[in-house]
Amino acid sequence: MAKFLTNRDENYAQWYNDLVIKADLAENSAVRGCMVIKPYGFAIWENIQAELDRMFKATGHVNAYFPLFIPKSFFAREAAHVKGFAKECAIVTHYRLKTDEDGKGIIVDPTAKLEEELIIRPTSETIIWNSYKNWIQSYRDLPILINQWANVVRWEMRTRLFLRTAEFLWQEGHTAHATSEEAQEEAERMINVYADFAENCMALPVIKGYKSENERFPGALDTYAIEALMQDGKALQAGTSHFLGQNFAKAFDVQFTDKTGKLDYVWATSWGLSTRTIGALIMAHSDNHGLVLPPRLAPFQVVIIPIFKNPEQLQKISEAARKIRSELETAGISVKYDDKDNNTPGWKFANYELKGVPVRLALGPRDLDNSTVEVARRDTLKKETIPVASVTENVKRLIKDIQVSIFRKAKEFRTQNTFYIDKWDDFVKTLDDKGGFIMAHWDGTADTEEKIKEETKATIRCIPFDAPEEVGRCIYSGKPSKKRVLFARSY
Amino acid sequence: MAKFLTNRDENYAQWYNDLVIKADLAENSAVRGCMVIKPYGFAIWENIQAELDRMFKATGHVNAYFPLFIPKSFFAREAAHVKGFAKECAIVTHYRLKTDEDGKGIIVDPTAKLEEELIIRPTSETIIWNSYKNWIQSYRDLPILINQWANVVRWEMRTRLFLRTAEFLWQEGHTAHATSEEAQEEAERMINVYADFAENCMALPVIKGYKSENERFPGALDTYAIEALMQDGKALQAGTSHFLGQNFAKAFDVQFTDKTGKLDYVWATSWGLSTRTIGALIMAHSDNHGLVLPPRLAPFQVVIIPIFKNPEQLQKISEAARKIRSELETAGISVKYDDKDNNTPGWKFANYELKGVPVRLALGPRDLDNSTVEVARRDTLKKETIPVASVTENVKRLIKDIQVSIFRKAKEFRTQNTFYIDKWDDFVKTLDDKGGFIMAHWDGTADTEEKIKEETKATIRCIPFDAPEEVGRCIYSGKPSKKRVLFARSY
Repeated sequence: MAKFLTNRDENYAQWYNDLVIKADLAENSAVRGCMVIKPYGFAIWENIQAELDRMFKATGHVNAYFPLFIPKSFFAREAAHVKGFAKECAIVTHYRLKTDEDGKGIIVDPTAKLEEELIIRPTSETIIWNSYKNWIQSYRDLPILINQWANVVRWEMRTRLFLRTAEFLWQEGHTAHATSEEAQEEAERMINVYADFAENCMALPVIKGYKSENERFPGALDTYAIEALMQDGKALQAGTSHFLGQNFAKAFDVQFTDKTGKLDYVWATSWGLSTRTIGALIMAHSDNHGLVLPPRLAPFQVVIIPIFKNPEQLQKISEAARKIRSELETAGISVKYDDKDNNTPGWKFANYELKGVPVRLALGPRDLDNSTVEVARRDTLKKETIPVASVTENVKRLIKDIQVSIFRKAKEFRTQNTFYIDKWDDFVKTLDDKGGFIMAHWDGTADTEEKIKEETKATIRCIPFDAPEEVGRCIYSGKPSKKRVLFARSY
Repeated sequence: MAKFLTNRDENYAQWYNDLVIKADLAENSAVRGCMVIKPYGFAIWENIQAELDRMFKATGHVNAYFPLFIPKSFFAREAAHVKGFAKECAIVTHYRLKTDEDGKGIIVDPTAKLEEELIIRPTSETIIWNSYKNWIQSYRDLPILINQWANVVRWEMRTRLFLRTAEFLWQEGHTAHATSEEAQEEAERMINVYADFAENCMALPVIKGYKSENERFPGALDTYAIEALMQDGKALQAGTSHFLGQNFAKAFDVQFTDKTGKLDYVWATSWGLSTRTIGALIMAHSDNHGLVLPPRLAPFQVVIIPIFKNPEQLQKISEAARKIRSELETAGISVKYDDKDNNTPGWKFANYELKGVPVRLALGPRDLDNSTVEVARRDTLKKETIPVASVTENVKRLIKDIQVSIFRKAKEFRTQNTFYIDKWDDFVKTLDDKGGFIMAHWDGTADTEEKIKEETKATIRCIPFDAPEEVGRCIYSGKPSKKRVLFARSY
């Protein structure tokens, strides 16, 4: 057990922070609220990018790049949008530094002031729709299905590594359509892509649903989200997709001629998923030994560790290890062979457990004699000794099995921590004692939602797509309700 | 011929700008100096990224991500560095907007002023070395071999699409080493990687060499560059690699214990290649019909165009076309089948010539009857009719051949436009009449270099690695010189 980690059950928040730092995923930078994503953490993001990018392209999207800067006036055009983001904007006002008068320091040159201030994008609807205006004249120019991989900035006051940082990396899709139906279909398609990615790549079970009006993206007519349950009983939103109606088309005057020759405003969606999901990945699966990574996103899926007493042994073991590595790599499995001699095998075992490498192979002199290798899986920590001849086949199976097992485990945890509650006292008590997902009736008003939040800190995470119609009464107001919604405290 | 393009020989600058716009690569945005990279242009960048990323990883590098923002004080620490970048910095001074007092507009909230201004990174040495300080204690922590894919901002006053923009995309490598030799080797290794990439992927012949002291990166002890010749006789720097000595380690106090237990400052390199290279790609190969793209970087290598008079014909042709596409894709070739019915085949031919698609296949009813297909190559515009059965084999060969041919053509152009000159009058006359690369002797002083620049606008592009030792006299001062250097006017 990684003794430098805070115990998960004693202090979950500290355990999380320790884990991010000790597993070398990220650290705070000298700039308030901005993190450095270290190579091991960034390799996870690269794998996330590769999987999502493939899925976006398979659904007809292409990538492009729009400016980092947004003229201040663009924000003012969509009322809800500016209201939502005004309080957390980083603003560029000048474009030159100079040496100060005593020649000792550098200062902002007051004569180099911008005529109009530029906002660092917190999201790109406004700058993108200003471009789309020139791209769209007729229905023949539609749909536009564009995605952008980019950094964005939201000046958050309280930040946490991955979960909430002033600058973060994400992808943002921005699509334009001829009809409302087509745009709504697109928004749904993409929340399904996110759910597919979360469940199959991240091994993270999610609930798909609508956001309540209060929780919608600023400027959207409808926001769909995927919500996941973390091990401390709090919810985390792992991706959102928005049906924007004609709001941005109207704000930027983007009209098109339809098939009948009539002018209409263009329909829009946007959808995004960020480095925040790395936080979800960590919190959903990891334990007191460290990270547990799903094989599909792990920087390397297998680590091979030699156990040796002298250089001669190491040489022989290395020969066998490299053969195994090459065989695994041919089978499409990513492998690291760690033959550094400045750490003991025991230290390495603990270190790769901490780093969540799905499969560990250990190879000592006795293994060499017996043509065996020790195989350990990170999720259960179980190990066994197997013949070298079957190692590739074994590892292939293990990798599939770990991916499925950690998903199943997370889903079981969610099932055990999802509560159908009908009484207000139980609602409050459950939140305080256990947390978890609470399925409860709600009267559909923003007022009730607000009061529940004030009294319990729980919010409506989403109105699940698949919530069955059932007669009930609002957990708070007692007014009639037709379906349960998902409540939780959240990140 | 694409009649909407300005003729290349009449107005090269306008031809370039027309081409970027008409081929749908990029356009100016609403933000001064910032461009929108459109999907077709961005697909080229994605291919560049994929190739380079593979090469970086093959040479032992990993990716990471550092903050967009750099505290102003960090810049002041390395004197040459701040001097080089102070005049083109975008500066964040505030972090909140608010509604103005009459409730009509939004303004920067004056109470939300940052204590220390933040610079949008023009390059990341300072923020990265501030992090490395915490990562490096001993020689065991070295080398650090990190690359970052990122956006950077340099507030240029005169901008041109791809070639010079206020925001651009690039990669920046930042490595840390225990010895000067190792760092110098790394800087050389990476300029070789860039040269390999330029010649083999971009089909762009380059000269590798040292920059003169005047032209070095601010803060570097040595800058290596690759220089390419454009079709208008001007040079373009397509990538640089810097040996930074201990300058940044000293500025950020990054010391390590070496094997003997002695403390020393860490040695550094940095190296970068940006979206500017897309400009080089365009200018090096394209003609009056449009782009000519090297197959290794083209968004799609083959376009298939059906020629039909009615839906029945289209259906039959589509069947055959899809079979061809599938065969080509299986062979690893990227293909677009354009069966849109709102443009004529003639329009499509011109459009894909404009877009530089390396190979065009056309398929009409007669081809169907004869089991043939028309194959045209973009670089020479030659076409021939071949049996369908041999199309994959043919296209594979063509793609290889086009890649090699356009490289050879560009190299021939460079050879014809490289002049060995020994007299000042010839030097001036050649620059004015022909442009091109001029190999001439130089006395090695910054003063002479400056005067040549003032009088002719030509600069020393580099001191070629492979310039032979030869006795000569400086083209300007007549003082003794031991080797020729490369002069040119440049982008």
